[in-house]
Amino acid sequence: MNMDDMMSLAKQRGLFWPAAEIYGGAAGLYDYGHVGALIKKRFEMAWTNYFVDSRENCYMLDAATILPEKPLVASGHAALFNDILVACKKCKTYYRADVLLSELGVKVSEGAKASEIDDIIERNNVRCPKDKGEMAKSKPFNMMFDLYLGPERSERGYLRPETAQSVYLNFFREFNILRKKLPLGLALIGKAYRNEISPRQGLYRMRELTQAELQIFFDPDTWDPDTGAFLDRKLNVFFYQAEKVERITVKDIIEKHNIPKFYAYHMALIDVFYTQVLNVPESKFRFFEKGGDSKAFYNKVHMDMEVDVESWGGYKEVGGLHYRTDYDLTSHSKGSNQDMSVKIEGKKFMPNVLELSFGVDRNVWMLVDMHFEKGGERSVLKLPPYLAPIVAGVFPLQHDKELEEFSYALYKRLKSQFKAEYDDAGSIGKRYARMDEIGTPFCITVDYETVDKTSANHGTVTVRYRDDKKQERVKIEDVESFLSRRISLNA
Amino acid sequence: MNMDDMMSLAKQRGLFWPAAEIYGGAAGLYDYGHVGALIKKRFEMAWTNYFVDSRENCYMLDAATILPEKPLVASGHAALFNDILVACKKCKTYYRADVLLSELGVKVSEGAKASEIDDIIERNNVRCPKDKGEMAKSKPFNMMFDLYLGPERSERGYLRPETAQSVYLNFFREFNILRKKLPLGLALIGKAYRNEISPRQGLYRMRELTQAELQIFFDPDTWDPDTGAFLDRKLNVFFYQAEKVERITVKDIIEKHNIPKFYAYHMALIDVFYTQVLNVPESKFRFFEKGGDSKAFYNKVHMDMEVDVESWGGYKEVGGLHYRTDYDLTSHSKGSNQDMSVKIEGKKFMPNVLELSFGVDRNVWMLVDMHFEKGGERSVLKLPPYLAPIVAGVFPLQHDKELEEFSYALYKRLKSQFKAEYDDAGSIGKRYARMDEIGTPFCITVDYETVDKTSANHGTVTVRYRDDKKQERVKIEDVESFLSRRISLNA
Repeated sequence: MNMDDMMSLAKQRGLFWPAAEIYGGAAGLYDYGHVGALIKKRFEMAWTNYFVDSRENCYMLDAATILPEKPLVASGHAALFNDILVACKKCKTYYRADVLLSELGVKVSEGAKASEIDDIIERNNVRCPKDKGEMAKSKPFNMMFDLYLGPERSERGYLRPETAQSVYLNFFREFNILRKKLPLGLALIGKAYRNEISPRQGLYRMRELTQAELQIFFDPDTWDPDTGAFLDRKLNVFFYQAEKVERITVKDIIEKHNIPKFYAYHMALIDVFYTQVLNVPESKFRFFEKGGDSKAFYNKVHMDMEVDVESWGGYKEVGGLHYRTDYDLTSHSKGSNQDMSVKIEGKKFMPNVLELSFGVDRNVWMLVDMHFEKGGERSVLKLPPYLAPIVAGVFPLQHDKELEEFSYALYKRLKSQFKAEYDDAGSIGKRYARMDEIGTPFCITVDYETVDKTSANHGTVTVRYRDDKKQERVKIEDVESFLSRRISLNA
Repeated sequence: MNMDDMMSLAKQRGLFWPAAEIYGGAAGLYDYGHVGALIKKRFEMAWTNYFVDSRENCYMLDAATILPEKPLVASGHAALFNDILVACKKCKTYYRADVLLSELGVKVSEGAKASEIDDIIERNNVRCPKDKGEMAKSKPFNMMFDLYLGPERSERGYLRPETAQSVYLNFFREFNILRKKLPLGLALIGKAYRNEISPRQGLYRMRELTQAELQIFFDPDTWDPDTGAFLDRKLNVFFYQAEKVERITVKDIIEKHNIPKFYAYHMALIDVFYTQVLNVPESKFRFFEKGGDSKAFYNKVHMDMEVDVESWGGYKEVGGLHYRTDYDLTSHSKGSNQDMSVKIEGKKFMPNVLELSFGVDRNVWMLVDMHFEKGGERSVLKLPPYLAPIVAGVFPLQHDKELEEFSYALYKRLKSQFKAEYDDAGSIGKRYARMDEIGTPFCITVDYETVDKTSANHGTVTVRYRDDKKQERVKIEDVESFLSRRISLNA
């Protein structure tokens, strides 16, 4: 599938499409339809279950997306959250310099300044891809959306550029309420906003996105998570120095590449999430280390999580694992004049932060691309059952009033506990196909034997598995436990 | 409890507090702590279960919060989503005119224009409550937050003032994907933004709020939901004409007050939600009909849902039920040049909309206020179990390694399925008290009998109920089903 195939699939199946579509859409803004909204929700639930609920001393927050100016000055975003903008002198098209250059095969570091970009453009004689026009001088462009609060429009605010800031601002209060224990994990799933110069690639580069982030606050001298179970696990890692992808054990990541143990532990945890929970093939998932200019200056270790996605044309970033040191709490301590250092067992120090950051929309896109299969007439979305938007379709096999009523009653019963759909329109084949297309893992049919007291199959329904189309009969009273077992994340 | 008591409770218990608190906070913006975020989530789940999942042909969407300008011009928000602003000439304090006047006991209609406000101010010789200064001429103030998209800041956008607009913009695509059936319910839970002139009263009037809204699209000639089960149900309703609150049956609402049957049906449904699901006493919940100038011009019938909340000093709006006719789809059909009328069984018409709108933050505040009980030393948050942030606390009764390990293992087991907390710090009384304060309905203790093979209570734990402090022994293998049954919404 290429980008266009994917977008057209998404529009037909109720997944997602440009916001305000009837008005011609809005660049970088997307809405989720009823199927896409459920997949997004299921991803968020799986993420929360895995990264928050299953862990110790980890909690979820919820916070305003508008922030006043001061904290974003302190965090550096007001001055530094910039992209370099270049425009064609002739057609006035604007480009993000790093994107334009890398698409033209010209090497540029992520943190390059406007003057460096101008040099590169001149040296390489870079012209506008549209009309070969000359490029104007480049300039920094702050990617935050600003707005004004209050009746005089006097208080400047910003839409937060990352959910992380909301968590850092609440760390100290939560640390105190939660009885002053470290490590403390504070997670947040919510919107972040970036005024991207050229939003594109569907849900990849958006102006409004959903992030799922976990910030772990810890004492770098004492945090020592048990890597035992993971030491021999092999991960795909591109190391900045090595300049190539290696398949390497966690043990070697720690010993040979000098990666902190707590960091390597979380690499393994994330690897399990992608390969076992999201069911991404091992060969399509990797960590990509950023170094030199491409690494944010406050990150001591910075790796992106990347997945090889057909419709994106290769490996793309779906998340990041950042050892942010004490940069954030120190900045906000200075900015707010509130010392957020902590005292534990007599030792006073500024907690360090390990950030696990995931782009929810990117992961939804990736999941749909990864699990979509088209073979001949049949197209199937092979999402793991706990990520499926609808758990069960319930159908009467024949057009018969008794079977319809019976099926409908079963559907109503299931509906209070599972996402279920009832369908009695068209042939049974068409109904299966509709469910396959949106990834419903189980279809339950009621037939004459179900209601025939003389039949050996009386009181049973047929469950058909989406992936291999195998069927089995299940007692009606066991349907709930059958489904529960199979959609459990721990199954 | 007054406002200050409530805010201080909220800060101590991890519920909510002003955003960017360490920087002195930001008016009208709030963050939820780990307990508040869970209560909010539980409210949203109960709402979704009741209004969406339990109903026919109802679906959930998710959408961008930034909207381009055109749809908000078409909807009338760009021109009309105004409050009237007045300022004191002396101290320059800004007031929302209707709020200022009604607090001074001066009657003013909700839709009053600036010139009318000026007349009222002059006639009543209204002065600034702070310094008795004279008031300047009033002027309309658009409450939407505007921002600029793209590198040239050339495209104007707005943060959506209500989630409803996101749904109207997606109706036509969803109607087609969902096989063109009416009534069709499309729900959305998400952020809405209003640049309130004077945000106040905690989570009551916020600049960034969460709404849970269900828009039902229907054919007004044929929609006839079965009111049978509700006809004799009595509701508290303030009718605009009657100018007083009546306790009146659904049958009389339809017959004597000429309220459409589908509207009265939803009043009853909402009444059940408040009094039975949220457990608000019948005597503290009412519908308040808006009429004349206080009703939005596009609403044919408009009632607020109001709850009598101590910390708000009386009845306040927590939601609204709006028969919006075909105003929205007609406006967007014109604005977008896309005819959104539908053709069903040969009849072509513009669907009408019934909107069920709920302020999530207001409802969270209301729930905490309503269910908080302080008697002597003990303070308890008596939330219904399915709204409780934590379902179970697990404690060892004594400080004993075997009991601690046993309790911890039980906690780990429960944690994958329920929100649970483990606590072994301090006396058992203190641990109960901590759980009572945040509304945990069940505390489970492990004692020597639990682990003593010779005891009749071997293999059982003690479950203590939050509300009456009664205790009972439950077999360890039955704990999950014990909890499941009691937190189910249908229990």
